[in-house]
Amino acid sequence: MSTRSFFKRILGEFVHPSEEARAARKAHRAVDLCHALLSERGEVSGAALAREVLFEYQRLPEGSFAPFFDALASDFSPRPENVGSASEAYCGDPSPENLLRLQRAVEPPRQELFRRLNMAPGGTAALIALRRRLLPGLTANPAWKTIDADLAHLLGSWFNRGFLTLQRIDWHTPAIVLEKLTAYEAVHQIRSWRDLRRRLEADRRCFAFFHPVLPDEPLIFIEIALTRGMSAAVRPLLDPNSPVDDPARTDTAVFYSITNCQDGLRGISFGNLLIKQVAEELGRSLPRIQRYATLSPIPGFCAWLKAAETRIAQLAGGQALLEEIARLESPDWHRDAQSAGVLQPLLMRLCAYYLLEARNDGEPADAVARFHLGNGARLERLNWLADLSKQGMQRSAGLMVNYVYDLSDVEKNHEAYVKDRRIAASHELRALARDCPLSRQTGKP
Amino acid sequence: MSTRSFFKRILGEFVHPSEEARAARKAHRAVDLCHALLSERGEVSGAALAREVLFEYQRLPEGSFAPFFDALASDFSPRPENVGSASEAYCGDPSPENLLRLQRAVEPPRQELFRRLNMAPGGTAALIALRRRLLPGLTANPAWKTIDADLAHLLGSWFNRGFLTLQRIDWHTPAIVLEKLTAYEAVHQIRSWRDLRRRLEADRRCFAFFHPVLPDEPLIFIEIALTRGMSAAVRPLLDPNSPVDDPARTDTAVFYSITNCQDGLRGISFGNLLIKQVAEELGRSLPRIQRYATLSPIPGFCAWLKAAETRIAQLAGGQALLEEIARLESPDWHRDAQSAGVLQPLLMRLCAYYLLEARNDGEPADAVARFHLGNGARLERLNWLADLSKQGMQRSAGLMVNYVYDLSDVEKNHEAYVKDRRIAASHELRALARDCPLSRQTGKP
Amino acid sequence: MSTRSFFKRILGEFVHPSEEARAARKAHRAVDLCHALLSERGEVSGAALAREVLFEYQRLPEGSFAPFFDALASDFSPRPENVGSASEAYCGDPSPENLLRLQRAVEPPRQELFRRLNMAPGGTAALIALRRRLLPGLTANPAWKTIDADLAHLLGSWFNRGFLTLQRIDWHTPAIVLEKLTAYEAVHQIRSWRDLRRRLEADRRCFAFFHPVLPDEPLIFIEIALTRGMSAAVRPLLDPNSPVDDPARTDTAVFYSITNCQDGLRGISFGNLLIKQVAEELGRSLPRIQRYATLSPIPGFCAWLKAAETRIAQLAGGQALLEEIARLESPDWHRDAQSAGVLQPLLMRLCAYYLLEARNDGEPADAVARFHLGNGARLERLNWLADLSKQGMQRSAGLMVNYVYDLSDVEKNHEAYVKDRRIAASHELRALARDCPLSRQTGKP
Amino acid sequence: MSTRSFFKRILGEFVHPSEEARAARKAHRAVDLCHALLSERGEVSGAALAREVLFEYQRLPEGSFAPFFDALASDFSPRPENVGSASEAYCGDPSPENLLRLQRAVEPPRQELFRRLNMAPGGTAALIALRRRLLPGLTANPAWKTIDADLAHLLGSWFNRGFLTLQRIDWHTPAIVLEKLTAYEAVHQIRSWRDLRRRLEADRRCFAFFHPVLPDEPLIFIEIALTRGMSAAVRPLLDPNSPVDDPARTDTAVFYSITNCQDGLRGISFGNLLIKQVAEELGRSLPRIQRYATLSPIPGFCAWLKAAETRIAQLAGGQALLEEIARLESPDWHRDAQSAGVLQPLLMRLCAYYLLEARNDGEPADAVARFHLGNGARLERLNWLADLSKQGMQRSAGLMVNYVYDLSDVEKNHEAYVKDRRIAASHELRALARDCPLSRQTGKP
Repeated sequence: MSTRSFFKRILGEFVHPSEEARAARKAHRAVDLCHALLSERGEVSGAALAREVLFEYQRLPEGSFAPFFDALASDFSPRPENVGSASEAYCGDPSPENLLRLQRAVEPPRQELFRRLNMAPGGTAALIALRRRLLPGLTANPAWKTIDADLAHLLGSWFNRGFLTLQRIDWHTPAIVLEKLTAYEAVHQIRSWRDLRRRLEADRRCFAFFHPVLPDEPLIFIEIALTRGMSAAVRPLLDPNSPVDDPARTDTAVFYSITNCQDGLRGISFGNLLIKQVAEELGRSLPRIQRYATLSPIPGFCAWLKAAETRIAQLAGGQALLEEIARLESPDWHRDAQSAGVLQPLLMRLCAYYLLEARNDGEPADAVARFHLGNGARLERLNWLADLSKQGMQRSAGLMVNYVYDLSDVEKNHEAYVKDRRIAASHELRALARDCPLSRQTGKP
Repeated sequence: MSTRSFFKRILGEFVHPSEEARAARKAHRAVDLCHALLSERGEVSGAALAREVLFEYQRLPEGSFAPFFDALASDFSPRPENVGSASEAYCGDPSPENLLRLQRAVEPPRQELFRRLNMAPGGTAALIALRRRLLPGLTANPAWKTIDADLAHLLGSWFNRGFLTLQRIDWHTPAIVLEKLTAYEAVHQIRSWRDLRRRLEADRRCFAFFHPVLPDEPLIFIEIALTRGMSAAVRPLLDPNSPVDDPARTDTAVFYSITNCQDGLRGISFGNLLIKQVAEELGRSLPRIQRYATLSPIPGFCAWLKAAETRIAQLAGGQALLEEIARLESPDWHRDAQSAGVLQPLLMRLCAYYLLEARNDGEPADAVARFHLGNGARLERLNWLADLSKQGMQRSAGLMVNYVYDLSDVEKNHEAYVKDRRIAASHELRALARDCPLSRQTGKP
Repeated sequence: MSTRSFFKRILGEFVHPSEEARAARKAHRAVDLCHALLSERGEVSGAALAREVLFEYQRLPEGSFAPFFDALASDFSPRPENVGSASEAYCGDPSPENLLRLQRAVEPPRQELFRRLNMAPGGTAALIALRRRLLPGLTANPAWKTIDADLAHLLGSWFNRGFLTLQRIDWHTPAIVLEKLTAYEAVHQIRSWRDLRRRLEADRRCFAFFHPVLPDEPLIFIEIALTRGMSAAVRPLLDPNSPVDDPARTDTAVFYSITNCQDGLRGISFGNLLIKQVAEELGRSLPRIQRYATLSPIPGFCAWLKAAETRIAQLAGGQALLEEIARLESPDWHRDAQSAGVLQPLLMRLCAYYLLEARNDGEPADAVARFHLGNGARLERLNWLADLSKQGMQRSAGLMVNYVYDLSDVEKNHEAYVKDRRIAASHELRALARDCPLSRQTGKP
Repeated sequence: MSTRSFFKRILGEFVHPSEEARAARKAHRAVDLCHALLSERGEVSGAALAREVLFEYQRLPEGSFAPFFDALASDFSPRPENVGSASEAYCGDPSPENLLRLQRAVEPPRQELFRRLNMAPGGTAALIALRRRLLPGLTANPAWKTIDADLAHLLGSWFNRGFLTLQRIDWHTPAIVLEKLTAYEAVHQIRSWRDLRRRLEADRRCFAFFHPVLPDEPLIFIEIALTRGMSAAVRPLLDPNSPVDDPARTDTAVFYSITNCQDGLRGISFGNLLIKQVAEELGRSLPRIQRYATLSPIPGFCAWLKAAETRIAQLAGGQALLEEIARLESPDWHRDAQSAGVLQPLLMRLCAYYLLEARNDGEPADAVARFHLGNGARLERLNWLADLSKQGMQRSAGLMVNYVYDLSDVEKNHEAYVKDRRIAASHELRALARDCPLSRQTGKP
């Protein structure tokens, strides 16, 4: 559809649509500039035009984005007739020349548009922001998926690991970056500058990936506590008043939080790269550290347990078990010694079973487990009453788990996981899972 | 063709091909690693594997590159059957889903391979070097063109203007960079550190584009002399013993050399971007500069003149002209006052005609003219005996030309050039061209 | 006194002085190391020994400082006998050689001790901290003044303007520096990171001097608001919720706070240097700024007014004036329209008189006035109800004053002030002072 | 002497002294500005005035420096009458107050003048340059020694080790610094950029001290070769064509050149600090390095040998020895196998004796030996035909010596040397010295 017809359609849909018409007009103007940016043969005014497009785009009122995205999807896609003839030519003779012609025919002009937009100062950030704005609308506007595919492809190429730098974050870091950590932190909220500062003291570490054109924007960051032994509870790690330990006396690096910062880079994974590179970096600078472990939530446990009740009911003694499990309903059950005493052995076993055996399409049911096991980590230890926050109690009955990154096994674990969905786990965790009532049942869930 | 069959073929071609076999074996090993790098589901060992591939690749003996490139071309291209079925599906129903499927089918796995190689330290530099090695073999090995297309596409995207930084080069620049300027300079050879130093004094400027992952590698650089009036000859600009002028007293910036440094980035154009950005930068820091001009060679003039002799012969008085032109044959003709006196008016007119009227496929015949006119510059002034170097005398009978970049006209000039092949030129130059004997002829060449 | 006798004295003063004896012993150990550091011929172990001294010094318990300083004062001063004989020699024959000998004799070995201490990492910071600890004890321990004189001399030489760098402070500044601004700010307390952040927005500026060996320690900093017109009240400047203005539309730079950070550098003045250099810097980067003015407290006004009551009483109509002045006693007088209406003209006149005419030893009675007038500023405008804080009301009845730094007059004003104690002031302020009842009296106060 | 009388004197000395008078007038103007800079009460225009003084000073013609220095010596020294009365007061009552007064009286106003000059941009460099210009004139103008004493005092304080930074110099260093290495290198001349580059390759190291206000000016630098075993000859180290060794396979760091760069900082010693800090730095970054040694010239050997001939003549067999020694006179003696064979055992013994036993005032006669032994190094090994350069043959008959810096012994060696003039030396060297004919004599030289 040409821009003109697009505009007519927009106008045609409404009678006296003053507000909408204005929004459409503004979208139209931005789209026109996009066409100009692309149609410029040569690049003489590329950067200046790109700047103009961004300027117009960034001033669009809320209502203009939908028509703007519609036009991006319709006007800047490959021409079906070109694709068709190139396809046919290729099907007739799959020569390299015909392949190249087909490749050119299927590449949306949109990609070149985005590459030219990137020439403007702030272009990369603007494209990330554009995708962030686009993503929530994908379901309602399936046509926009082609825009997303182009952006994901480009950004994935531009944010290649080879272009990123790993930087330590500490109290010498500019405030503009620290402020963003606070805003982005997704696992354990940073409550104040004092809270943040504690997380950057001598017995803590924080690292982030940055891209050279976005020096103030962490892409992903990880928070680490240097401890003596592997942490079994999260609150002491987060307590702003906890005493600062001498890092030379610690032996374990506990990765207690990892946060992707840029919604607009969704699907471009940095996490496993970051964990491994940080572990190597720590190994160099702190040779006494012997173990790299996480202290991780188990976000899906309680939901799975709920869903598993029918199966439990069918076990011998199942009703009794369900009654015990029902103690979780009473508020503050963990402060009641009897309840806690009854629940601890039962939930530990069920949770071990959940982590090792519960699967969706062959993959572990737990999202966090999928991430760490996919990275080659090992399920190491379940921790009772490890996260007493409201969320922690609701999602996993206060349980947390340590995954261990043993650098010499990571690759082996990863391969076993990818090929056979085999999960690396400690004897202790396996034993717990074996003792789970559901295991004594026949087979797999 | 599978790797196995490729290997068989290589081996099969020679009986006892000890040397070749060894080279093939080494290429084979590198190719195997490339497959491993790609087949790795997930990215756990991506960076480590990428490092290994590069290590193997960089140790390949000379004879291994051809088989290695052969395999890159054969093994990592799209599968015709996939492309075929996706094409058919799309031709049947040109839906967004089918387009996406087709796009995926036509993207060579090679591109993902290159993206993964880029994760290794030094990966980007290695890919540029790989392309530099590949380019000279394209004619003899047309199959390699698909490799080149992939690299050109990726590098073009990665070296987008938005990711480059403009840096001033001066005597505070690290020696490792300065040394490279000396090695790369393509227009006016830098003969010594003293020569280089003169080009970085207070009345000179030098700027280069850099990419953040290649901090020691200029991509393109430009050399500028700040002068009083527009330079008419190149030797004074290059003389290491010339007195250093006070930049505050200069009014013209003469761009006397621009050099693309990276063969492996051939076809990715930075030149016009650099000229315009440098002009803006100079405008800010040296507000007294009123004119931005080049002092440029005219590389194709003498060759064109040779070819034009038949036409000249056909003119009235053509034989007399040819006799005069023949004076160019005698060595050191320019030192002979009579010869020079006769030739100056004639050659100036012919050269103006050459620059304004000689075309190939509608574009100016002179390569340097194509570059500057395409950027929106204006042909300003021909300079007699401006370049007495051997090359300068051979290629353009010592003539040089100033192109002027008038920032307020650049866009207009560019559009007129791109759309109608109209050339911006000074009255003086137009007048010279009009007075050329060839003009008095009927029409255009 | 030798170290030995010093130690005996310390021990002799107390019977069973377990605590004191321990403290003295520790001081003694540090003093011994100081002797070792000085006695080392050559410098082979200077840095290592200096490090040791600092280590011991920094672990001294509270009670050890007095004996340590006593020993610094007694053991490391020039030897009277040397000074005596060098003096005599010089008095007999004032030759250059005898002068040099006398100079060497009077330089305390302490200075060389401090210079050697400075070789240790952190040495400069430690010496500043030492002086900060020393200063409060000077009155009670006059002997320590010689230590202070040596430190002041050395630090004054080391923190020479030529070694300092002016740095802009903004939201890109490391948190470790910003945190210190908050801690040090002495004029208008910074209440939170949000408050701080507002002071670093686009319409604010903050600059500080730094010394290269103390990159995280501002020495002095100044806070500036870019405004339209000269601010007449301080609260709007400090309001964290005030809208951020476009700096390109402002015409005035209001210096609303200047803070010396390092107690240990007391007496080494950076203030006037900072103000002038910042004004020049702003002039370069913000050419539309036409005026550099302060918004300053008048800390001594109310105290002076109290003391002047006797003189006022003696004026014709003096009793009536005193009654009006007495309205200041009632709480929240400024909210009472009548009181405010009566007081405004009176207090404005009295305060103008105070600033222009009240003197101590020929210098302005007001400390802030002395600073800015001594720097060459001009008294510009009195502002009614400009500072409603408790302190502002108590010290100056809410009045504040603008001093203007007119760079072209600063030197002239400074000279007139230094030579003749002439004060530069606006006509408006002079008129107010002239109209003050005290002026109509005979002459000067 | 007042400035006025100084000026009269200058003028009075010559009739028609056009040239001299002009020079004196210019000196006078600069001196006047110095007075203004000092007399400025307060500092309002300090930096501007300091700039003016430097500007005038730097344009002084050659002939103006003597009168300028004369005035610096006469006009800015302490006033004898003040010193006299302060001395008398102190002699009468050696109180702290009187000491402070005396200290102030003897400090030349020149020191404050220099401190104020330092406020100008480039001030520190200008003061260093001023001293460099002053030093050669001290012998002829003893009055200038007071100027030198003041500068030496100030610069010594300002260039305290605590303010210097150690920086590695390599091919990434700015050309402006590398160029200076070439200009300054005093031990083994750097002949070209290629020669320099070889000295910065992977198996070489170069470090320098810098002061923060002189980022382009190395103060002292040291050149190091990483070798297998301790070098026995200098030419291989300096050969620009020598193959580059893998530093990971080396075990010895050979310090083959150390150069003080700034004449104006003469007497302020950085050498021993630099050697020790570099050794520590190398120990950290290259843990396989086991030995830190120099390859040093023996500049005084041949001169001493000449002077020792009378003593040798008196030995039993002395005439025969002298005849052998006389072989040194014939050109290229070292290429004559017989001469070399005869001379080697004899000269090695004499040189060992020279290094260990020849003394001036108790200190080693050899200047280089004094430096390294004073730093705590050990005489390790004599090397035959180690330096065949003209200078090397003339000064030490081609001999060189290795001093070893054993970090665990350095302090002990230094103390033994400083207290008892005991020299640390290897058994081998002691044995050679013992076998020297001069040793078989009675006792010490």
